[in-house]
Amino acid sequence: MNIKIYIDEKIKDKFQLQAIKEYDKRLTRYCKLKQVVYKNIEDLESIQEKTYKILVNEKGLSISSEELASKLENLAVTGKSDIAFILADSCDSDDYISLSTMTLSKGMSLTVLYEQIYRAFRIQKNEPYHK
Amino acid sequence: MNIKIYIDEKIKDKFQLQAIKEYDKRLTRYCKLKQVVYKNIEDLESIQEKTYKILVNEKGLSISSEELASKLENLAVTGKSDIAFILADSCDSDDYISLSTMTLSKGMSLTVLYEQIYRAFRIQKNEPYHK
Repeated sequence: MNIKIYIDEKIKDKFQLQAIKEYDKRLTRYCKLKQVVYKNIEDLESIQEKTYKILVNEKGLSISSEELASKLENLAVTGKSDIAFILADSCDSDDYISLSTMTLSKGMSLTVLYEQIYRAFRIQKNEPYHK
Repeated sequence: MNIKIYIDEKIKDKFQLQAIKEYDKRLTRYCKLKQVVYKNIEDLESIQEKTYKILVNEKGLSISSEELASKLENLAVTGKSDIAFILADSCDSDDYISLSTMTLSKGMSLTVLYEQIYRAFRIQKNEPYHK
């Protein structure tokens, strides 16, 4: 599974960079993951048609970690191996989720998203993961 | 306002400790905040009667950052100056909120909670805070 995370700014907070680096390392076992910094909404239009696009912001659908795990598993099973998580206020997408109904900073959203993707793979593989 | 955050384990992840330290520093302008590590549910029973207790877990009510800001402001206005945020599966409480419907690790919950308390005060004071 190829996962790309689209975000419109480079994260600078040291502690978030550290967190992301750590999850990035852990995720290499489960998927290919890449972060893409976009400049404007037009940049998102160039995402390939075959990519399954999941828009992420606080207005999206609140789901559980188990539901995210199932979602990613279903996509894999149905041959969708290119997934984009797009941190944006709005854009064309196939799906629309929320990490929190609270407004998280960009860096915090990215950190939580990395954790949730990691958690999703751990759930899929029935591997333990501390709360 | 005196805020205590109750959590049942010491956070060890370096990046989360760094994040918490940073928010802790920023929050000194707005409130007295203290972290309390509890061992078991009985420890929570010793929280003073006058304290307004907010249970925090993924089953709680999903609210916005603005709603958390109003909640804290209303408590202050009505003379409730001791607030406890309790990260636990269950316990006696006056209020019951969720940071995310997804399961966050303890350290991540704590980090997000610190950010949200900080954001709440910034919202109350009409001070800008980056998304």
